[in-house]
Amino acid sequence: MSRFLSTVARRTEPYVPGEQLNQPDIIKLNTNENPYPPSPKVLEAIQAELNGNTLQRYPSPTVDPLRHAIAETYGLTKDHVFVGNGSDEVLAFSFMAFFEPGKTIKFPEISYSFYPVYSKLFNISFEKVPLNADFTLPKKQFYNSPGGVILPNPNAPTSIYAELDVIEDILRNNQDQVVIIDEAYIDFAGPSAMKLIDRYPNLLVIQTTSKSRALAGLRVGFALGQPELIAGLTRIKDSFNSYTIDRLAMAGATAAFVDHAYFSESINKVIRTRESTVHTLEELGFEVLPSDANFVFVKPLHKDAKVLYQQLKNRGILVRHFDQADIREYLRISIGTDEQMNTLFEVLKQLTK
Amino acid sequence: MSRFLSTVARRTEPYVPGEQLNQPDIIKLNTNENPYPPSPKVLEAIQAELNGNTLQRYPSPTVDPLRHAIAETYGLTKDHVFVGNGSDEVLAFSFMAFFEPGKTIKFPEISYSFYPVYSKLFNISFEKVPLNADFTLPKKQFYNSPGGVILPNPNAPTSIYAELDVIEDILRNNQDQVVIIDEAYIDFAGPSAMKLIDRYPNLLVIQTTSKSRALAGLRVGFALGQPELIAGLTRIKDSFNSYTIDRLAMAGATAAFVDHAYFSESINKVIRTRESTVHTLEELGFEVLPSDANFVFVKPLHKDAKVLYQQLKNRGILVRHFDQADIREYLRISIGTDEQMNTLFEVLKQLTK
Repeated sequence: MSRFLSTVARRTEPYVPGEQLNQPDIIKLNTNENPYPPSPKVLEAIQAELNGNTLQRYPSPTVDPLRHAIAETYGLTKDHVFVGNGSDEVLAFSFMAFFEPGKTIKFPEISYSFYPVYSKLFNISFEKVPLNADFTLPKKQFYNSPGGVILPNPNAPTSIYAELDVIEDILRNNQDQVVIIDEAYIDFAGPSAMKLIDRYPNLLVIQTTSKSRALAGLRVGFALGQPELIAGLTRIKDSFNSYTIDRLAMAGATAAFVDHAYFSESINKVIRTRESTVHTLEELGFEVLPSDANFVFVKPLHKDAKVLYQQLKNRGILVRHFDQADIREYLRISIGTDEQMNTLFEVLKQLTK
Repeated sequence: MSRFLSTVARRTEPYVPGEQLNQPDIIKLNTNENPYPPSPKVLEAIQAELNGNTLQRYPSPTVDPLRHAIAETYGLTKDHVFVGNGSDEVLAFSFMAFFEPGKTIKFPEISYSFYPVYSKLFNISFEKVPLNADFTLPKKQFYNSPGGVILPNPNAPTSIYAELDVIEDILRNNQDQVVIIDEAYIDFAGPSAMKLIDRYPNLLVIQTTSKSRALAGLRVGFALGQPELIAGLTRIKDSFNSYTIDRLAMAGATAAFVDHAYFSESINKVIRTRESTVHTLEELGFEVLPSDANFVFVKPLHKDAKVLYQQLKNRGILVRHFDQADIREYLRISIGTDEQMNTLFEVLKQLTK
């Protein structure tokens, strides 16, 4: 490591994202992307911005058009909405804005593996709370966290959704700390915790356009919360980067929040494929955790998971394996199109027979 | 301020970018954007990416195609190039990667006003070095800085370029600290410090596509340095946000580094207009600092600068005034098209007669 690096740069242990192989014929079921393209209205809006020939001009530093569209969609005001360059940036800003070195935060032992990375980067101590044996949340273990709570709902990579009464109990028992509910997959699950924003000033909900709105390629995430929390995020953002959302991403993401019909249809297709995938994988000898996401978390009962991951990769199908205690025997498989899943099933039949 | 905010969020004093008024008929000479659009090849490349219908897929987390194009342009390798979401993000990551709390960094007293913002955000102590009376760099004052150096070249808002021997002397006298040369405006000036990268492992050069390449709307900045420094920036980026550059920005910015002919022509047009602007403003009773940027820094000799700023704004012309000691009597005026500058001159004639 270079002698010029700061303590922060030495201390950090970077996150490793899912492989992004660029072979065109690969079946990519490893990063929970949407198998369907975004709404045609998204492409039209980007086209219009492109035709306007405005790329030489800075975008809106306050991301107003997009914040307005998100607020309209969810019956909130613009001041309840913060937008960032992907939900990872929103998470990073949230760690800076709401978590304090010296005050231990809590998150589930099995959850998004970026949380410990942010914690080390920003010098926030953390406690990993073990999940129940069935991978559900042991809610009381999150009560009265000294520094705050962050958890994904549905959880990743387990795909399990916690009902809102569980989330509310955690909020009620952390009234002096911020509780961040990371809802990257919520549109494939039950109701969002955003319903609780009015009653809980300590609640920050983070979502993304990368999954349900099929815009992983555009990098737009957002946070919802009471205006005082949003103002805190804005303070950090305005101290870091004035213009985080480019003109084309702003135009496209804004349109994605307007075409409700396309959005519902796309979600429903993924959910239908998920249900048939669960059924088929169980038939093929997998234990499948109950999924409320656009992926399933499965344990091959007669085969080593890591070996299977590699064999699938050799056959041109990418899934994700986490070499980590407690989940080493599982694979995370994104829901693709029916055609992609059928190819997966065929290959699995050969590999597991 | 919300009781939930961290010490960091309370401590920071956010940067205030230039006004972004959305009146279509305004003449916007306040944020140093390029008055000309980007190369048609940029629009074609974005169009091709859009037609490929890949927005549901994550972009390359390592930004490889763009890093490759930048490296080719400057005779470097991909490992000498880091790309970020605007040069502000690259600056923020650089403060995290190379500057250390407790070790005082130095930057010019009159320079980019984001530097003290980053310093406070990341708890880096700093010393503002006063410029010489003619606004040139007092190079010896930057020697042996305990924590490193950052300076813009050409400087902003003064527009003055320091020759490379000055930069090299500062590098040679800071061999144990990183020296960041922030070259947002370099393409309108003399040679870049990137020529010194081979010899100085402590040199990081930061540039942007927002000015000379007319892509302020796309948010792409970059850093050049020896691979060990670039690896340090990558460690921070991968601990913060896996995918910072979206697919359309990547496609567009990559094309901007391929069309050399358009680039040179656009630069030359701005420089020609700058030279005639200097001449006319001097005739109109302004002192004009020697400019090597795409803006001029001028002092109205017979009028209060702040009053003039407001009068111009009332007439639909935005320039920038900094309400700050030593430069309160100056205005920063971006170079627009010849037509825009002629309108400015007409209005100034009325306002200053």
